Amino acid sequence: MDRRKFVATAGLAGAAGLLTACGQQNAGANCPDASAQSSGETFNWKIVTTWPRDFPGLGTAVNRLAERIGAMSNGRLNIKVFGGNELVPPFEAFDAVSRGTAEMGHGAAYYWKGKIPAAQLLAGIPFGLTGHEINGWFYHGGGLELYREAYAPFGLIPFPAGNSGVQMGGWFNKEIHDLNDLRGLKMRIPGIGGEVLRRAGGTPVTIPGAELFTALAGGTIDAAEWVGPYNDLAFGLFRAAKYYYYPGWQEPGSSLECFVNAEAYATLPHDLQSIIEVACQATTTDMYAEFEAMNGKALNTLLNQHGVELRAFPEDVLAALKNYTSEVLEDLAAADELAARTYASMKSFLNQTAQWTAIGEQALLASR
Amino acid sequence: MDRRKFVATAGLAGAAGLLTACGQQNAGANCPDASAQSSGETFNWKIVTTWPRDFPGLGTAVNRLAERIGAMSNGRLNIKVFGGNELVPPFEAFDAVSRGTAEMGHGAAYYWKGKIPAAQLLAGIPFGLTGHEINGWFYHGGGLELYREAYAPFGLIPFPAGNSGVQMGGWFNKEIHDLNDLRGLKMRIPGIGGEVLRRAGGTPVTIPGAELFTALAGGTIDAAEWVGPYNDLAFGLFRAAKYYYYPGWQEPGSSLECFVNAEAYATLPHDLQSIIEVACQATTTDMYAEFEAMNGKALNTLLNQHGVELRAFPEDVLAALKNYTSEVLEDLAAADELAARTYASMKSFLNQTAQWTAIGEQALLASR
Repeated sequence: MDRRKFVATAGLAGAAGLLTACGQQNAGANCPDASAQSSGETFNWKIVTTWPRDFPGLGTAVNRLAERIGAMSNGRLNIKVFGGNELVPPFEAFDAVSRGTAEMGHGAAYYWKGKIPAAQLLAGIPFGLTGHEINGWFYHGGGLELYREAYAPFGLIPFPAGNSGVQMGGWFNKEIHDLNDLRGLKMRIPGIGGEVLRRAGGTPVTIPGAELFTALAGGTIDAAEWVGPYNDLAFGLFRAAKYYYYPGWQEPGSSLECFVNAEAYATLPHDLQSIIEVACQATTTDMYAEFEAMNGKALNTLLNQHGVELRAFPEDVLAALKNYTSEVLEDLAAADELAARTYASMKSFLNQTAQWTAIGEQALLASR
Repeated sequence: MDRRKFVATAGLAGAAGLLTACGQQNAGANCPDASAQSSGETFNWKIVTTWPRDFPGLGTAVNRLAERIGAMSNGRLNIKVFGGNELVPPFEAFDAVSRGTAEMGHGAAYYWKGKIPAAQLLAGIPFGLTGHEINGWFYHGGGLELYREAYAPFGLIPFPAGNSGVQMGGWFNKEIHDLNDLRGLKMRIPGIGGEVLRRAGGTPVTIPGAELFTALAGGTIDAAEWVGPYNDLAFGLFRAAKYYYYPGWQEPGSSLECFVNAEAYATLPHDLQSIIEVACQATTTDMYAEFEAMNGKALNTLLNQHGVELRAFPEDVLAALKNYTSEVLEDLAAADELAARTYASMKSFLNQTAQWTAIGEQALLASR
């Protein structure tokens, strides 16, 4: 089957909801060929991930995703999990699934910005939607349709699958009192956050995770943003830097993703297609819950056992970073049509939901 | 199979994670009898809900849950959805599933406080865990084990399935300036929130949803808490009262639930058991996303098209309500051993996560 045609008819079919059997919304289990297709055949698939094997939160949730798909399909869809570099290097996962070396991948959309400018937006943007807001946008705000459109030319179908929740602002070896302290700052901070830092006069650097600790401890860089307390504790970053800054303005609730080779997906009977889709959506609750619980525990350990010093970014620094963020995003939108539509859609959703979040979640938290 | 024995061995088996095939964690699809059990048999089940059919958010998510279970099982597990009063009255759903009249139910734990004192806590408590915090507690903080323990004596297995997010404080026909304004206030507010209002000098009343509008519009009651903008708009409550108060201190992120008859669950092959379990977890993302998107949109409509006046509860009123909440919960814990353990576990989780939420989600929202 022609790859683009499949993606156009199946991958983009739905409006707000998930795809279900028969590749369109609400088709239920009554598709004419579903029962014939779903008999005995076993599929042995590979999932390549951008994380090290068993990486806390990100990798552990993928392990559970694969287990559950195996259990729900009664072993008819077996998915073998490969950590980064086990089958392909982490950042080749997208290409590997696109060409069919593996049937599935797990990563974060902003990793693919070199191929898809809009992908920088699809995991979330600085000062943007939080974890549960972005799910609202995906499933009831047009986000998933844009996501599918972005990946369709590569023969991939994306499924949101996990969320890290809000991250931390990073580890610093000097305090940030005002914007001047960002000038010349060498910081490991990828993606849009890095570009924002550049406009503020800093120097974003890209360093593989494995070298991050040494670079920070040895003074090659002045600061580093990684994930949040759960991962940062596991990585020992508290031994490499003194100050732990919040909030994680650069990643307010990053959405993770599964991407599935569209031709491989088309060969599956409809029940197995539904199993992948629903399992990915369950992984969002599952991973978000793991981060929520483990970040709280890890933060206590960092503060009470390792003497980490928490610092808040000054308000005027955050305000300036927010302005630079708008500039970066406007530039991105001006350069790419799909990025423009994606940014407009996210902004519109945030405008719609911001007051609700303010009087709902935010007012509630202030009252506790 | 003895109902209690099944629940003790299967329902309580897991530690942090979900049950998977074979009724214990991480069993995967390799259970000896799984493949034999999962051949052709078709199960026709009923789910009785505590909501009117197609009720926005709560009912619509149950419709999708049933559709997805049908699609994932390729029609081997068909679940017919009954709205409240279609098969049994809404608040008889628990008993109906316990005795096997229906195999599944969907509701909120606090509805069952007459049978299980701890159930008042399990959907969330005033000034307590938010939607994603309570998921952290369920899946990585011991919450799900307590939930299963609470329902086991009734031959039911509970699965968290949906979250409303934070709710609203309610509709008032007079303004609340201080605690004196709560004295004598007749308000529709169920559960622990109602008991808190009573201690503040108010009169909580129980009114079925269908009579709520008339009671509020006609002055039989002075105020009413329902859900949030999405449901309140659909119910037309803006025509019955003038002021719309926030935050929804009484329900910071209510978790909804499926409860499954344990004997019926035991008759399912393991793949169908997993399908139910994962579909329920996906429903949490699905429903929470619907509420997030639709509440934002509905709030705009209420404010801009219907001239609703937003009001914040004064800080000292919230502080007093928070103190009364602690008293009510301590009394509940003193009267029931499982409620005591459940409350202690939730408090411990909130203590662990509160600082993380403050520097994470809360600080991020303040910076946007």
